[in-house]
Amino acid sequence: RNMATEKLAGFRERIRSELDRAVDFWLKHSHDKVYGGFFTCIGRDGKVYDELKYVWLQGRQVWMYCRLYRTVERFHKDEILEAAKSGGEFLRRFAWVPSAGSMGKCAFSLTRDGQAVKVQRTIFSECFYVMAMDELARVTGDREMQKLFFLGGGGARPMPNSPHFFYPRFGPCVSQVHAETVMDQLVHWVRVDPSGLGRPQLPGDLPVNSLAVPMMLLCLVEQLAEGRVDVADKYRELGSWCVQQILQHVQRDGTAILESVSNDGKELPGCQGRLQNPGHALEAGWFLLQYAVQHGDKELQRIAVDKFMEIPFRTGWDQDHGGIFYFLDVDGLCPTQLEWSMKLWWPHCEALVAFLMAYSLSREPTLLDRFTQVYDYTFSHFPDKEHGEWFGYLTRQGSVELDFKGGPFKGFFHVPRCLYMCERLLDSLLAAACDS
Amino acid sequence: RNMATEKLAGFRERIRSELDRAVDFWLKHSHDKVYGGFFTCIGRDGKVYDELKYVWLQGRQVWMYCRLYRTVERFHKDEILEAAKSGGEFLRRFAWVPSAGSMGKCAFSLTRDGQAVKVQRTIFSECFYVMAMDELARVTGDREMQKLFFLGGGGARPMPNSPHFFYPRFGPCVSQVHAETVMDQLVHWVRVDPSGLGRPQLPGDLPVNSLAVPMMLLCLVEQLAEGRVDVADKYRELGSWCVQQILQHVQRDGTAILESVSNDGKELPGCQGRLQNPGHALEAGWFLLQYAVQHGDKELQRIAVDKFMEIPFRTGWDQDHGGIFYFLDVDGLCPTQLEWSMKLWWPHCEALVAFLMAYSLSREPTLLDRFTQVYDYTFSHFPDKEHGEWFGYLTRQGSVELDFKGGPFKGFFHVPRCLYMCERLLDSLLAAACDS
Repeated sequence: RNMATEKLAGFRERIRSELDRAVDFWLKHSHDKVYGGFFTCIGRDGKVYDELKYVWLQGRQVWMYCRLYRTVERFHKDEILEAAKSGGEFLRRFAWVPSAGSMGKCAFSLTRDGQAVKVQRTIFSECFYVMAMDELARVTGDREMQKLFFLGGGGARPMPNSPHFFYPRFGPCVSQVHAETVMDQLVHWVRVDPSGLGRPQLPGDLPVNSLAVPMMLLCLVEQLAEGRVDVADKYRELGSWCVQQILQHVQRDGTAILESVSNDGKELPGCQGRLQNPGHALEAGWFLLQYAVQHGDKELQRIAVDKFMEIPFRTGWDQDHGGIFYFLDVDGLCPTQLEWSMKLWWPHCEALVAFLMAYSLSREPTLLDRFTQVYDYTFSHFPDKEHGEWFGYLTRQGSVELDFKGGPFKGFFHVPRCLYMCERLLDSLLAAACDS
Repeated sequence: RNMATEKLAGFRERIRSELDRAVDFWLKHSHDKVYGGFFTCIGRDGKVYDELKYVWLQGRQVWMYCRLYRTVERFHKDEILEAAKSGGEFLRRFAWVPSAGSMGKCAFSLTRDGQAVKVQRTIFSECFYVMAMDELARVTGDREMQKLFFLGGGGARPMPNSPHFFYPRFGPCVSQVHAETVMDQLVHWVRVDPSGLGRPQLPGDLPVNSLAVPMMLLCLVEQLAEGRVDVADKYRELGSWCVQQILQHVQRDGTAILESVSNDGKELPGCQGRLQNPGHALEAGWFLLQYAVQHGDKELQRIAVDKFMEIPFRTGWDQDHGGIFYFLDVDGLCPTQLEWSMKLWWPHCEALVAFLMAYSLSREPTLLDRFTQVYDYTFSHFPDKEHGEWFGYLTRQGSVELDFKGGPFKGFFHVPRCLYMCERLLDSLLAAACDS
């Protein structure tokens, strides 16, 4: 083995062991054995400090468990499958609030026993619900989920005006159909009519292309279409539309990725228009790269790397203290977000996936250098040596500022997804190195 | 003069000059001479970095200008009155969104030319609207505002289902009546039926007594009742109810002030229940103290100082770096607010007012020590020597983290209100010292 291969093998070893520790942490501390689903507010040592259940994080944990169960041999364990099914059942029974919006919406947060606490007027709870249900369909074959849903005691009842109503009673692939039904609903909210989200229409609130929306929909297109020709056909135009919407965020003559643009791809006025979220741009980068590879689109592959990886890395990296800023203003003004200079775990996760994926495709050494730089910062700052899993929120200087492992926006998702993807990319790189 | 008097005179000199600088800054940089109203997003050097107009801040600036004009001789200037009237006219024409909520609501933010951008499902925009209109009524005598409103070109038209409808056409004190009409509406939302706010009713979203709500209403009772016997009578029971609601936040056998409690005064579960906001408790402290003095309630005066000033100061002061934390968890866990450890300008403003008011009443030396400790931190960290006015957001360590003077939540309010109140308190203390 040469030195480069040794280096990759070292990355893989650490990443693999971090993934094992993260999975162990959530298996041990997050399962609610009384009401089902997952606790998501989990302290440094694993203690639950709040029993609220955040729907984004319930959905993401179901998805991640199923994906690990389905694709990684050492995680193909009953314990993981059962936990995923419990989370899926909890979501199906309790996530949907028929009275919210104009035709029902997923809650944002639920009490421990599943009562809706808060509903957001955005699409994201529904998006993570779709991700969860689709991946669950892939591991259960659905008959079982169907039974859990219809025979489960005391849960929410399907309402005529909610997607539950469309949930076919004896279909062959119930979760998948259910996921697609909700998917079609949220595509309608995004592309046709947002009024069902429940926001009042205000004359000064012009429609905005927020990077999160086409990214999320593109992610769902990938999720639903994987290995299914008919579904891929159905969502082909949507995938292409998402890519175009994402590309509209390349602004300032190709020198900046802006988080929000107008619906016709122009820069918006004020702070909103100037906002950069480097971690988000990097995540969009690897979404685009995946899409470009699948569609053999070399030009898109180049844009994904040059624009959505190089620009946010160059502008988003803190030259003084290392790490990636949370928010920046493209004109160098001070962002109005109080947490703008903090170093969050997830932008670093996205950067690791982005640069390793880009390197895997091109074998361009500077991309491996980028990966290495992010890797060094990430693994020397975020993992908790004592209790496992990662801290999520560091100061600009790199010290731990919020010490919990799970909170309203941090669950079993970015850390394991990043480690899982990087492990697989490194497996391929190392296998190729052995072959050569 | 003795040493204590010298010290007070020194405070007054600095405070007076800071107030002058703050007033100059906003007079110079915040007035929109084209569309009326005030820019609120103003950079360190006075440059407008976003043209959005935040309604809380429009209302607060109108109130503050009018209060200064009405009660401080050196600010009794046409320039200040005209600016206040321009802000009041802007609010009257544009703040109200008839289609929001079930019977109209005030917007949270507006475009530069007055189009509604966002409506919050809370009472606070309306509260600052009432504050503004009532104080404006006290300086204009209303005839003029009435003219501006009814003859102003192109503005929002009164809708039958909005408080504008009740705006009497030729009454003797129009702004005051209008302020009271909106006041009665928001009291209805708080005490009778919140459904008009537009939040869906969710089974897990139990009613909560948030410290902000009774504080705000108590502040409005003081505002509307000042010098008006009939209005004081009308709102006497409401004032007393507000005080009782505020006192419910004394928890843990009198050792903690919690930001949110249940409607029957019990601690709530989870993070929400454990949250402390020391600056907010200190502000409640001086609201209660004012009320206690007016009502000759010695017991309430004691509680205001011992519970709402001493406790948040003792638990909220950062022993390592100085300054008052933004949020804390009563059990010493990590708050989930990313900005929990930052030092914000406004809690320091509230602490200054609280301790100086408490000292003025009791002449207890430890209270002057508290004031001095907060004063030393505040005046060595927040004022901008170069451009005037104060920075709003420091790191835990005390360095400036966001350098703008005005933003979505920082306007012409906490800094001048604090300086204005402290100057008056020091005037009285020094006058008394001369007399003795």
